[in-house]
Amino acid sequence: MENDRLKKQIDFILEIDKEKNILRQTHITGYERRENDAEHAWHMAVMLYLLKEYANEDFDLAKAMMMALIHDVVEIDAGDAYAYDSKALEHQKEREDAAAKRIFALLPCEQGEELKALFYEFEANETAEAKFVHAMDNFQPLLLNDSNNGGDWRAHSVSFEQIFNRQKLTELGSKEIWKKTKELIDENVKKGNIKE
Amino acid sequence: MENDRLKKQIDFILEIDKEKNILRQTHITGYERRENDAEHAWHMAVMLYLLKEYANEDFDLAKAMMMALIHDVVEIDAGDAYAYDSKALEHQKEREDAAAKRIFALLPCEQGEELKALFYEFEANETAEAKFVHAMDNFQPLLLNDSNNGGDWRAHSVSFEQIFNRQKLTELGSKEIWKKTKELIDENVKKGNIKE
Repeated sequence: MENDRLKKQIDFILEIDKEKNILRQTHITGYERRENDAEHAWHMAVMLYLLKEYANEDFDLAKAMMMALIHDVVEIDAGDAYAYDSKALEHQKEREDAAAKRIFALLPCEQGEELKALFYEFEANETAEAKFVHAMDNFQPLLLNDSNNGGDWRAHSVSFEQIFNRQKLTELGSKEIWKKTKELIDENVKKGNIKE
Repeated sequence: MENDRLKKQIDFILEIDKEKNILRQTHITGYERRENDAEHAWHMAVMLYLLKEYANEDFDLAKAMMMALIHDVVEIDAGDAYAYDSKALEHQKEREDAAAKRIFALLPCEQGEELKALFYEFEANETAEAKFVHAMDNFQPLLLNDSNNGGDWRAHSVSFEQIFNRQKLTELGSKEIWKKTKELIDENVKKGNIKE
C-alpha cells in the first residue's frame, strides 16, 4: 500500500522529466540556445527566494516555490504558447485543462488534487503567492533577454505595447520589480531592441 | 542604494544561468541527452516537496528547496565531478571552495553569506534539511538511470559496491526512500545493468 503510493509519486516524477524537452522562445545568456521549461522554473524558484524582500505582500515561500516549479507542467501535453503569439494562445486553455487533469492524476489522489489546486491558483493570479510567482515568470525572461541585447524581442518583432501590457502584471506582485522592469524596457527601447 | 542591492542580486541571477550549460553524467528519460545542473536541481526541488512525508525528521521545506536549487552552483567554476570518478574528485574541494567564495560574493553581503552557509550546510550533511536533500540528490539520478535501463551505469561500468556506498547516504535522510533505493539497485543488478 505504502509502496503503491510511492510508485505513483515516482510515475509523476518521471513524467515531468519531459519538461526538460519543452523549449521556450527565450534564449539562455549568451544566446546559444533556447531554454526549456525545467530550467526556467528552476531559475524562477531561485529568484523567489532571493528577491522575496520585494514582494508587495507576505507570502508562503515553499508554496510559491512549488507553484513556480510546476507552473508549466501542463505544457508537456499542451506545448508552450509564446506570450506574444495570439494565434498560438487560442484553445490553449482547453489543452491545458486536459493536461492538468491527466498529469496530476498520476499522483496519489489527494496529492494530485493539492498540486492541481496550486496550478489553478497560479493561473487565477489572486493570492500573494500567485502574484509574486507571476512577477518572477515575467522578470526571469526579461533579464535573460536584456542580457542578450533583446535578441528574442528582435527575432519576433515584439512591440513596446505588447511587452508593457504583459509585464505590467508584475506590479501586482512587486512594485520594486515593476520599477526595475520599466527601467529595463525603456533602455531596450532606446537601444532599438524593442519597437516603439 | 536600493537599486544597487537589486543590481547585485540580478548579477548573481545571471551568473547562475551558466548552470544550464553544466552537463552531468546522468541522461534524461529516453536517454536522448545528458541533463544539466539546473534541470537536476529543479527535479530535486520538486521531489523534496512531493516526497517530504518520507523524511526521517521534520525539516524546513523552503530552506531545503533553496539548498537543492543552489547545491551545484560551485560547478560553474569547478565543473561536475562524476560521483564514481575518483580522479576527478581530487582537488574538487579546493576548486569548489574558491568557486563558492567568488560566486556568492556577487550578492549583497549578508545574502551572499546566508547562501554560502546554506551551501556548506548541504556539504556537511548534518542537519535534517541537508540529509533529506542528499537523499534526493541520490534518488533523482537513480530514478532516471533506472528508467533508462541503467544506461549510465553500463556506460561507466559502475559496480554494485560503488553505487551502494554512495546511495547508502540516503538512509540518513529517509529510511523509506532507502528501502526503495535498495529495491531498484537489486533489480538493476538482476538485469545486468549494474556489475556485481
